[in-house]
Amino acid sequence: MPLDLTATSIELTRQICDIESVSGNEKELADEIEQALKRMPHLEVLRDGDLVVARTRLGRARRVVIAGHIDTVPVNHNLPTRLTTEDGVEYLWGRGTVDMKPGVAVALKLAAELAEPSVDVTWLFYDHEEVTSDLNGLARLARTRPELLAGDFAILGEPSNGAVEGGCNGTMRFDVVTRGRRAHSARGWMGENAIHKAAPVLQLLSDFVPETIEVDGLAYREQLNAVLVSGGVAGNVIPDECRIHVNYRFAPSRSTDEAEAAMRALFEPLGEFELKDLSPGARPGLDDPLAREFLDAVGLEAKPKYGWTDVARFSALGIPAVNFGPGDPSLAHADDERVETRQITACEDALRAWLQ
Amino acid sequence: MPLDLTATSIELTRQICDIESVSGNEKELADEIEQALKRMPHLEVLRDGDLVVARTRLGRARRVVIAGHIDTVPVNHNLPTRLTTEDGVEYLWGRGTVDMKPGVAVALKLAAELAEPSVDVTWLFYDHEEVTSDLNGLARLARTRPELLAGDFAILGEPSNGAVEGGCNGTMRFDVVTRGRRAHSARGWMGENAIHKAAPVLQLLSDFVPETIEVDGLAYREQLNAVLVSGGVAGNVIPDECRIHVNYRFAPSRSTDEAEAAMRALFEPLGEFELKDLSPGARPGLDDPLAREFLDAVGLEAKPKYGWTDVARFSALGIPAVNFGPGDPSLAHADDERVETRQITACEDALRAWLQ
Repeated sequence: MPLDLTATSIELTRQICDIESVSGNEKELADEIEQALKRMPHLEVLRDGDLVVARTRLGRARRVVIAGHIDTVPVNHNLPTRLTTEDGVEYLWGRGTVDMKPGVAVALKLAAELAEPSVDVTWLFYDHEEVTSDLNGLARLARTRPELLAGDFAILGEPSNGAVEGGCNGTMRFDVVTRGRRAHSARGWMGENAIHKAAPVLQLLSDFVPETIEVDGLAYREQLNAVLVSGGVAGNVIPDECRIHVNYRFAPSRSTDEAEAAMRALFEPLGEFELKDLSPGARPGLDDPLAREFLDAVGLEAKPKYGWTDVARFSALGIPAVNFGPGDPSLAHADDERVETRQITACEDALRAWLQ
Repeated sequence: MPLDLTATSIELTRQICDIESVSGNEKELADEIEQALKRMPHLEVLRDGDLVVARTRLGRARRVVIAGHIDTVPVNHNLPTRLTTEDGVEYLWGRGTVDMKPGVAVALKLAAELAEPSVDVTWLFYDHEEVTSDLNGLARLARTRPELLAGDFAILGEPSNGAVEGGCNGTMRFDVVTRGRRAHSARGWMGENAIHKAAPVLQLLSDFVPETIEVDGLAYREQLNAVLVSGGVAGNVIPDECRIHVNYRFAPSRSTDEAEAAMRALFEPLGEFELKDLSPGARPGLDDPLAREFLDAVGLEAKPKYGWTDVARFSALGIPAVNFGPGDPSLAHADDERVETRQITACEDALRAWLQ
């Protein structure tokens, strides 16, 4: 059944959540989005891999980019979606109901509905946001067809509890690798146990107290976590390697060089340091006139964004950008991911009011 | 060309190494062994799967079981065998040249040659030693035809550098599992990091000083090692589980219950404890008169065996058993597996002297 862009944004959220689209598996959903938008005569629709762009070409003085990623983290027994009501509050449960299919649904609905918005709009639905940034669909477009990202202001529909969130923390991923020497585990003293050597690395992570840093009036809370660990060869072999994959989220006041230097200083005494991924944060950028106009129209104060989002990519292209989307970001990626459905409608109404 | 049991034991080792017999593929070699032994009128030969039993029936007061497995770990470009000489020392190189075809060759040669040994002998050539114990040919025989294993003393021709090794350590494998709660790693404070909780588990393993325990006059060195570790979901998710797979090698004086209780006492305060595998050790059993007689005849002192071997299966049947075979066990399974050929002849001579 094709997507029904005239359905309510809640209903549409549910439809697109129930099309599983874990990173790497976005094709079906991208096909549906492309087909649905191609039926709208006021939109020019382009496809790049599993990224879909739909643009108005009204010749308005200003162009706004409204973007959202269509992939999710892996499903964990939380699809298909289900709807519940608790004390009169309605929730939609399931993978993607926060991060970030409601934002995508609102954009899809308004893209179809608003044939003559007050500004030109580039609607952007992209792939591979939940994985390493070299796969990111938005980054790919910025490299290969940057003209499609041109605009005066950008709104990313990432979950922000319906608030406007400015800027974002930077994010860095690296491995700390401890090494040893293989031997049969019956004669362990002939080898050197790499997993045992990881103890001080985990202890450091466990003891670390992250900072909270104020940038342009917004307070950014940092985070340092081991997210993956692996090591060992077989049940009877002393392991010769242990690899701890660490994620550092740092305030946008730190440069990527500063962030890297801080992590190297901490971990290099304990193991080999292998940088995997490093993306700068974005300062809030809320002094831009279009940003102020948008804040006034939706009647909200800006807050800091904790998670790294692709607003930083717009920021790097010189385009002021904010996050504005339904859903509590603290429930993103959680097994009990769920959205209060009235947030979806509220976002839809606010965006529509501003764009009309 | 059929096996020539009148060849030297070095030559015979080479013949049976060049018949590839990786676990599961023992049939050709078992056929050759069965046919060669059936030509000996003084032996009763029986076949069970790819296991071959050959027995004298001289009515001697005592019976000795001399056993060896005919399978090897996978070949890794190290067959056919080759012979080298370095500084006047001759080596036979190739898969099986240590573990444990020289021991098998010595047994085959003496089985054919000794028509009237001083004790009755059960010569046993079995399959599937290098894989999980539910496939082990010796274990199968113990279950289905235990009368064929009857004896007063057993010698396993596993590589022991030509020394006599008594008993073996027990071995136990278990997981220690730490748990947390998933959350987006940008908001780590909403979750609980299971990998960080593994720090004290690894610290305990790293600090642990294993005991050396004397059993029946032999010193058994215990070992406690993390052999595998895994945890985490994705690069941006606070991990909800970390699993550390631990191998404990314990002296044969500890029962399996005692070993398990000791490990539970150590690790249960730090995580969930999941027992995976537990095999008892074997006491050296060198106070047995036949064992003492054997040691005196070969003129060697016994040493402890560290690795778990099938002597523990004889021990469980109440039969004192030792390892005695050519080859350096630290070269078993190695790509550069090789045996000093004079060890083969020395073992052959020692066994012959005792059995005559």
